[in-house]
Amino acid sequence: MTEILVSEVGPRDGLQSIKRIMPLEAKKRWIAAEAAAGVREIEVGSFVPPSLLPQMADTADLVAFARGIEGLKVVALVPNAKGAARAAEAGVHAMSIPFSMSETHSLKNLRKDHPAMLAEIAAVAEIAREAGIHFAVGLSTAFGCTMEGAISEDKVVRLAEQAAEAGAQEFSLSDTTGYADPAQVRRLVRKVRAAVGADKMTTLHLHNTRGLGLANVVAGLEEGITTFDASLGGLGGCPFAPGASGNLVTEDLVLMLNAMGLKTGIDLDRLLAVRQILAEALPGEPLYGFTPDAGPMLDYKQRLAA
Amino acid sequence: MTEILVSEVGPRDGLQSIKRIMPLEAKKRWIAAEAAAGVREIEVGSFVPPSLLPQMADTADLVAFARGIEGLKVVALVPNAKGAARAAEAGVHAMSIPFSMSETHSLKNLRKDHPAMLAEIAAVAEIAREAGIHFAVGLSTAFGCTMEGAISEDKVVRLAEQAAEAGAQEFSLSDTTGYADPAQVRRLVRKVRAAVGADKMTTLHLHNTRGLGLANVVAGLEEGITTFDASLGGLGGCPFAPGASGNLVTEDLVLMLNAMGLKTGIDLDRLLAVRQILAEALPGEPLYGFTPDAGPMLDYKQRLAA
Repeated sequence: MTEILVSEVGPRDGLQSIKRIMPLEAKKRWIAAEAAAGVREIEVGSFVPPSLLPQMADTADLVAFARGIEGLKVVALVPNAKGAARAAEAGVHAMSIPFSMSETHSLKNLRKDHPAMLAEIAAVAEIAREAGIHFAVGLSTAFGCTMEGAISEDKVVRLAEQAAEAGAQEFSLSDTTGYADPAQVRRLVRKVRAAVGADKMTTLHLHNTRGLGLANVVAGLEEGITTFDASLGGLGGCPFAPGASGNLVTEDLVLMLNAMGLKTGIDLDRLLAVRQILAEALPGEPLYGFTPDAGPMLDYKQRLAA
Repeated sequence: MTEILVSEVGPRDGLQSIKRIMPLEAKKRWIAAEAAAGVREIEVGSFVPPSLLPQMADTADLVAFARGIEGLKVVALVPNAKGAARAAEAGVHAMSIPFSMSETHSLKNLRKDHPAMLAEIAAVAEIAREAGIHFAVGLSTAFGCTMEGAISEDKVVRLAEQAAEAGAQEFSLSDTTGYADPAQVRRLVRKVRAAVGADKMTTLHLHNTRGLGLANVVAGLEEGITTFDASLGGLGGCPFAPGASGNLVTEDLVLMLNAMGLKTGIDLDRLLAVRQILAEALPGEPLYGFTPDAGPMLDYKQRLAA
């Protein structure tokens, strides 16, 4: 029986991509309802300056709330050491820092080149170690960049190794731009795992911009990936591609994994019901996914892991 | 270099699913434009009684037209021996008969139980043999039925063997209902190929009702499948699932296969331009797909097979 961890990133990656600010109470209802549906890990927010992302200003409150939910691993994104200190103080179980493989994107997104990011990773690793917190480096734009185009696989491997030397002990590969294809996923996962250790690279963060999200999940499963990020309702669709979801849709991912007989521990019916919280808190905001419209297969329950 | 055949079924599976009748001249433009984009096989229509499906009444004309396009394999669906005789007379290169693994669905769709279908397959095989035409049996509802629910894999294998004894020499597995999951695709493809011969089972007909279409393609590729059916614009969306495409979207399939470095021979830009013909001939009809909105990756051309 293979256990797969579905990590909900909607409260961070979804909400930071839309302009409206979801009220704190709605975020709490969302997080509580997903945890009750069986989701065991949620990225609740980001410790960025509230002046830059006011949508994330209540992250410390959310961490405190989510820590009260039994069995839930509470994750937050941190852009730098300052954010890491805030995250540690707030009491996260784990934090992740995005490390963009595209230096152009890194400079634009966090105003840091690769050496500056590696120094930041070392500082964050130290904070995490002292606080006894899990810490992962998200190798973002690893499958290509909308500004630089192709990112060489050798470069991703080299930067992952340098991040490991800087103290990173966990990694995820992130398809920030929706560029990944299944052959590339298999190649890059294999190479990065070989470089940093398979036990340290177990997570994929995939987007569905070109509809390849679940196809890339299948490629990841074949390579032994056991954690997949996704966003409820695919919240935070790409503005340049109307109708195209940015994030992988949690509901479709859970349907697929459960139907395959993999063990996610998530109840699909209860998960689908959580959409109502988003629809009420963000009226008119597009929600994506095929499963919410089509429903599960008639024999869905027969397919579930025993 | 793996060559993959993308078989366009929109003029049959897409158009039979919508009420409006596309004018013959628009169908011809569509077929000619796709062939010019590099599509090497098109199912142009169905030899069913025009009283049942007036959308398909001009199939013989389309066969004659498509036969004039160099390098194009012209396929038609036939429901029975009578249709097969008309298809042979029209001059198709290949014909396929749907054989529903769900007897309930078979009775409802073609008013024939399994023994009656096997007799029909034998009659069609004889007509195809005499005319020197390729003939395939589409094992439909193979991954589950909206009326019966689960279809046992043993039953699919047994019915495929019986169809082979009746004279069928080629098979495809068809996810008529959008029920397939990647694990099931791998299992069932392997079992049917073992039963009838891997060289006789090279095609998957997948739907995208639950968003798993391309994920199932990846599973099929892993098992050695080399032909995938798809419909331009996912034409013929499921009425019960608004926003959910029924058919696999040709544009997304081609993007994925080409980006993976597989050789389809299809030019994505020219394929995307063909949507305009559908939009003009069927104004207001929903067209699906992610690639048409998002466009290919910036480094798409670097990913193509040399």
